[in-house]
Amino acid sequence: MSKKVIVLGGDGFCGWPTSLHLSAQGYDVVIVDNLSRRNIDNELEVESLTPIKSMGVRLRKWEKVSGKYIGFYNLDISTDYDTLLNLINDVKPDSIIHFAEQRAAPYSMKSSKHKRYTVSNNLNGTNNLLAAVVDSGLDIHIVHLGTMGVYGYGTAGMKIPEGYLTVKLEKDTGEIVDHEILYPANPGSIYHMTKTQDQLMFAYYNKNDLIRITDLHQGIVWGTQTEETKMNESLVNRFDYDGDYGTVLNRFLMQSAVKYPLTVHGTGGQTRAFIHIQDTVKCIRIALETPPKKGERVKIYNQMTETHRVRDLAKIVSEITGATIEFISNPRKEDDENDLFVVNDSFLGHGLKPLTLKNNLMEEVIEVTSKFAERCDLDKIPCKSYWNNLREAEAEAGK
Amino acid sequence: MSKKVIVLGGDGFCGWPTSLHLSAQGYDVVIVDNLSRRNIDNELEVESLTPIKSMGVRLRKWEKVSGKYIGFYNLDISTDYDTLLNLINDVKPDSIIHFAEQRAAPYSMKSSKHKRYTVSNNLNGTNNLLAAVVDSGLDIHIVHLGTMGVYGYGTAGMKIPEGYLTVKLEKDTGEIVDHEILYPANPGSIYHMTKTQDQLMFAYYNKNDLIRITDLHQGIVWGTQTEETKMNESLVNRFDYDGDYGTVLNRFLMQSAVKYPLTVHGTGGQTRAFIHIQDTVKCIRIALETPPKKGERVKIYNQMTETHRVRDLAKIVSEITGATIEFISNPRKEDDENDLFVVNDSFLGHGLKPLTLKNNLMEEVIEVTSKFAERCDLDKIPCKSYWNNLREAEAEAGK
Repeated sequence: MSKKVIVLGGDGFCGWPTSLHLSAQGYDVVIVDNLSRRNIDNELEVESLTPIKSMGVRLRKWEKVSGKYIGFYNLDISTDYDTLLNLINDVKPDSIIHFAEQRAAPYSMKSSKHKRYTVSNNLNGTNNLLAAVVDSGLDIHIVHLGTMGVYGYGTAGMKIPEGYLTVKLEKDTGEIVDHEILYPANPGSIYHMTKTQDQLMFAYYNKNDLIRITDLHQGIVWGTQTEETKMNESLVNRFDYDGDYGTVLNRFLMQSAVKYPLTVHGTGGQTRAFIHIQDTVKCIRIALETPPKKGERVKIYNQMTETHRVRDLAKIVSEITGATIEFISNPRKEDDENDLFVVNDSFLGHGLKPLTLKNNLMEEVIEVTSKFAERCDLDKIPCKSYWNNLREAEAEAGK
Repeated sequence: MSKKVIVLGGDGFCGWPTSLHLSAQGYDVVIVDNLSRRNIDNELEVESLTPIKSMGVRLRKWEKVSGKYIGFYNLDISTDYDTLLNLINDVKPDSIIHFAEQRAAPYSMKSSKHKRYTVSNNLNGTNNLLAAVVDSGLDIHIVHLGTMGVYGYGTAGMKIPEGYLTVKLEKDTGEIVDHEILYPANPGSIYHMTKTQDQLMFAYYNKNDLIRITDLHQGIVWGTQTEETKMNESLVNRFDYDGDYGTVLNRFLMQSAVKYPLTVHGTGGQTRAFIHIQDTVKCIRIALETPPKKGERVKIYNQMTETHRVRDLAKIVSEITGATIEFISNPRKEDDENDLFVVNDSFLGHGLKPLTLKNNLMEEVIEVTSKFAERCDLDKIPCKSYWNNLREAEAEAGK
């Protein structure tokens, strides 16, 4: 019998290709989504560079090309608890994948309204899911998409472990003992803060109710297409390049496609972790296939495959595309330069063979940004969400 | 010119005597409260042992006996952001004291509805306050009532420091370095979990927006009256003895007043921290008078004055009142026995001379529990909120 999985947020950039991949691999998939990502596009007056079809068209096309059926419920899990619980009781899934959070740091910093939406949506959504799994009485494995950003910018030049850190404590007697703790949180935005708060919920429900949970601390996802989304143009995945939802790499690719300079924030010395969307969907399948046992603590994996400084990333894109590079003021409150060394043994140990920026970026340029360049709205590329009043004033003064 | 302070949650057990104390000390006080504590009494079909007057009666009586005016706004800060922001902009307070959270661990565990209410009310309320202070542009000192419970049950036999823990990290080179972190969270209920999540919000807004914040990690508050609430019977403070809002000491005092055995959960080996309500209001005044500087990290004080194991507490009450002691199953998921050693140098350094259980408990028995014993509803004393299904099943089996 095929395994049943509910994908919360299955209409989004990671959720959609994950749903297709699991469906192709024989999982019985149900998508839950309130279409918030599409509605936020309306609010921001932006669009994915790739043309995205309605859920109805997407799902009918998938059934036609793959022969597989995916269910869909339009539901806000942060507000409609009873429907969520009924759905879980009806479907009786083996696993639930939780992508249903507002996931853009700049969007979370735009205004107090956006801060409040991000906190309420993300924290109530996660708590509702956990409370509903307890209420259902079912032994469901929850897989959550967290972020490398919960770690902040690393600690004392150490490699960042997978979620848990062994520290040494000096007792009152002077004796020094090893003690394992959740890695100390140091979030860089309201969005990242909610993910550090999610961790505390997972730890608590895991301890009190023995809920089985895997939390994936993901790097910046790049790339647009996966094996499944390439099967038909109606299945194409999102490519966001706007200042709020477009990641640094996507904005560089978009700028180069339209012959603009690549805009690097500050010195570009910020080091970031990356993973290709094709590897993301594989990692999530691996997480589903290697669940924690009942009573085991929350499993935490670092879901990333390479790190680069932002200015080095600009250089790579520039070398491929010939674009020039321009340094501008940083809208974020963060250190100009940081190192980032990350342990990612878990997924590599499960056989993941990562795609790399060096080998696979050209395909992205040809198949996505160049192909759809005429759909680009240039005005939307700059990031106009400032972390605080000081950063906004600096930007206005042209610093 | 007198200092202006807004007290969020100023109708509650700590908020009301704090408001009167600050008013008596010359502060210009504005209370904000949505009367949720009274409404929860309605839901649970319980009442304070002491008869509580309406806010209108309380405030008019205070003006009569003290000559001081306290303003009042009936407002839910977790949902009505715009009114909160307007109020802050109108009042322009020097400080805001934040008591406006659901504060009972058993209530937070009653059902998924109560878990969800506690998470939504507490986290959205705290975030709304912080976002509103940023939006106001005013340099307001926020004083928040946290809980000793954020620390869990202590670590490795060490004294619990005031909020921050120095750990030793081993770098990849083998070098060992000192590193200071927020004390690792280990909450014992959904309520306590929200307080650990609050800490992350305070740390973030402090870092990003330089908001000045003092977080008071308070022990179990005992005692009912303060100098100000004693001034007139219409000003009397709450005494809760029900299974959800009644703390362990209040329930022991109530049981002895009605000649029932004191019911100890499990072995009674749980160690708890305590502070008298008269000392609580003094501590809050000290916190207001010693704010952090702009740019200084969140100040964290441990607001407690003594610790006792629950079975020793029962013994103290039994010795004073002659009540017998009975051991029953524990509805909470927690260790049977725990030690608790706490640093509380900050308040003692500021001159606090604590009231003690040993010297001051008799007054509580005479002036409160014996005096109002006839108002007690015996059925409400047992705690019927179970931490998980296993604890409920054990209780039903009479374990």
